[in-house]
Amino acid sequence: MSYEIRVEKTNMPKPKPDMTKLGFGNYFTDHMFIMDYTEGRGWHDPRIVPYQNLCLDPATMVFHYGQAIFEGLKAYKAVDGRILLFRPEQNMRRINISNERMCIPPIDEEFAVKAVKELVMVDKDWIPEEEGTSLYIRPFIIATDPYLGVRPSHTYKFIIILSPVGAYYPEGINPVKIYVESNYVRAVRGGTGYAKTPGNYAASLKAQVEAHEKGYTQVLWLDGIERKYIEEVGTMNVFFKIGGRVITPALQGSILPGITRDSTIQLLRSWGIEVEERSISIEEVYEAHQKGTLEEAFGTGTAAVISPVGELNWNGNIITINEGKTGPLSARIYETITGIQYGKIEDKFGWIQEVK
Amino acid sequence: MSYEIRVEKTNMPKPKPDMTKLGFGNYFTDHMFIMDYTEGRGWHDPRIVPYQNLCLDPATMVFHYGQAIFEGLKAYKAVDGRILLFRPEQNMRRINISNERMCIPPIDEEFAVKAVKELVMVDKDWIPEEEGTSLYIRPFIIATDPYLGVRPSHTYKFIIILSPVGAYYPEGINPVKIYVESNYVRAVRGGTGYAKTPGNYAASLKAQVEAHEKGYTQVLWLDGIERKYIEEVGTMNVFFKIGGRVITPALQGSILPGITRDSTIQLLRSWGIEVEERSISIEEVYEAHQKGTLEEAFGTGTAAVISPVGELNWNGNIITINEGKTGPLSARIYETITGIQYGKIEDKFGWIQEVK
Ligand SMILES: Cc1ncc(COP(=O)(O)O)c(C=O)c1O
Ligand SMILES: Cc1ncc(COP(=O)(O)O)c(C=O)c1O
Repeated sequence: MSYEIRVEKTNMPKPKPDMTKLGFGNYFTDHMFIMDYTEGRGWHDPRIVPYQNLCLDPATMVFHYGQAIFEGLKAYKAVDGRILLFRPEQNMRRINISNERMCIPPIDEEFAVKAVKELVMVDKDWIPEEEGTSLYIRPFIIATDPYLGVRPSHTYKFIIILSPVGAYYPEGINPVKIYVESNYVRAVRGGTGYAKTPGNYAASLKAQVEAHEKGYTQVLWLDGIERKYIEEVGTMNVFFKIGGRVITPALQGSILPGITRDSTIQLLRSWGIEVEERSISIEEVYEAHQKGTLEEAFGTGTAAVISPVGELNWNGNIITINEGKTGPLSARIYETITGIQYGKIEDKFGWIQEVK
Repeated sequence: MSYEIRVEKTNMPKPKPDMTKLGFGNYFTDHMFIMDYTEGRGWHDPRIVPYQNLCLDPATMVFHYGQAIFEGLKAYKAVDGRILLFRPEQNMRRINISNERMCIPPIDEEFAVKAVKELVMVDKDWIPEEEGTSLYIRPFIIATDPYLGVRPSHTYKFIIILSPVGAYYPEGINPVKIYVESNYVRAVRGGTGYAKTPGNYAASLKAQVEAHEKGYTQVLWLDGIERKYIEEVGTMNVFFKIGGRVITPALQGSILPGITRDSTIQLLRSWGIEVEERSISIEEVYEAHQKGTLEEAFGTGTAAVISPVGELNWNGNIITINEGKTGPLSARIYETITGIQYGKIEDKFGWIQEVK
């Protein structure tokens, strides 16, 4: 494939939104990256073009059989003005893991990081600068054959779009209330849980809607087999601090291997804090709560970085954690990772890549 | 909503394909049906327009979170020239079951049948007439908000496209070889298995590709919990005839409630043949094979109607059924259902609706 990215700039730049009222995923920048895949020819024609509609035959396979994957990462405006990415090579690694499961041909990971950087440079005026804001980067791949038989597509599009997003915690990091889901199942071993593929999110909507109606922000999924082991939370992995030890569900194929999860584990171990990656049941968490040893719980993900859990509702049993307040360990991880992301703290792990 | 369907006819009709070489899902007719949903307004603006690309913002939710459903049914050119649909109200019923699971607002089922009929009438010249051919009808709904947060969309499109398709068995009904899948899982109770949603099909691709490589047409799924009970085959439900009784897996949330499955059960019972809807393990099938009581096995689905199973491969154990030939019961069901569909046999069940 040609590694030259053709750039066609817009001559109709959009007005920028109010950067203090961005929310998440509402606004998109002036340009997008596209690259095509054709069987026999491979990935080809990488280009940055004005942000524009995709015009697709209604028989296009992605609409019918959901053969697609996506990623989510962010570009940060550092305190010294540099533009920083956080472990982008990990997202591209994960694209290929997702691709493999979904029968989508692999991408060149290094080239994909380069494409992200070039696109971010083209739209660098769109990176918001307010505290906690960032430029959300959404790479995705869709199957594009106009064909109704069930089989892997022979053609694909790899697209990257950018969206300036607001601070997740405009008033400071804040605990969430989570509903433990005993009825619906998100994924099971042997399925697609570890891949970042649209169907996993479609499957999660109903439980999320019902949890919202009960006053909860997200659901905590339990395993689909025994319905007792903790999996993950909506779009976050989850950690518990019990009696001084930190525990997070092991990666066994049904949950997403989060990059923030991995960073959190590395960080904790570098601080001399033990982390156990293992099966943890909701009963174990409940018993720790009863015994008073459940110290903290938090979710990890690109959107919020760290989301302290203030309350769990497990079939009506209310588990209040750290009096519903952000715990010291959650706060320390949050400050450290966001500090590295915004260039305020030294990056000892080699996680940061500068966009130039 | 307005029940008036606006019709805009093409002034550039496409050349028709060679109706003896259609295959499945390759060609599309001159028109399509579209209707929009907007929160607060409901479904609106139903219209039949020239077949055309969908132009969608790259942030459109269906690309990212797969919130979508679809259906599949057929229009048949009867021996007397009438145009017949087979139980279309059942497909529209199932759309609403799928919609409910996927948090998509319900459609008016009667109106949707009417939309199918009007569209088929507009493109009636596209219905192939060769033995065994038909006009495949693909209704589908996609989430259309250009937004990257994970939540149900506030806007949708309900679309119907038509594709003339060839005979499934150009040389007469023919048994298939099926691979029993012990590694991958399609769906689990609590998930989306009973809904006709893209993610289920995306999840099935990898097993299908690996089965093809081993020389098998499709996979037979086992349950995701104990990995022993039979679920369904690719895009078909499955039946076994053992010692004179017919057994098919019960509907427990992880398999699609097939319309051909239901028709087959009704037909068998009308013939005085017992049908058991219950859990059936792959061991039970294997043991029946060993004892010589496994008489027939067949899949049921809109595409093939009846697909006799000539061979199962279960972890290397080869189960040959009826010497790899079509069994008499499979043949009788096939002849009866296709006979009703093409108006050759009296429709005692009220399954047929004429398009006028
Ligand atoms: C299902 C799911 N789990 C976990 C995560 C957290 O992953 P990461 O830390 O890589 O953002 C995400 C978000 O990407 C997710 O969608
Ligand atoms: C997964 C699955 N199972 C079973 C079936 C058979 O259903 P029906 O008989 O309604 O075509 C289909 C096809 O529609 C299917 O996709």
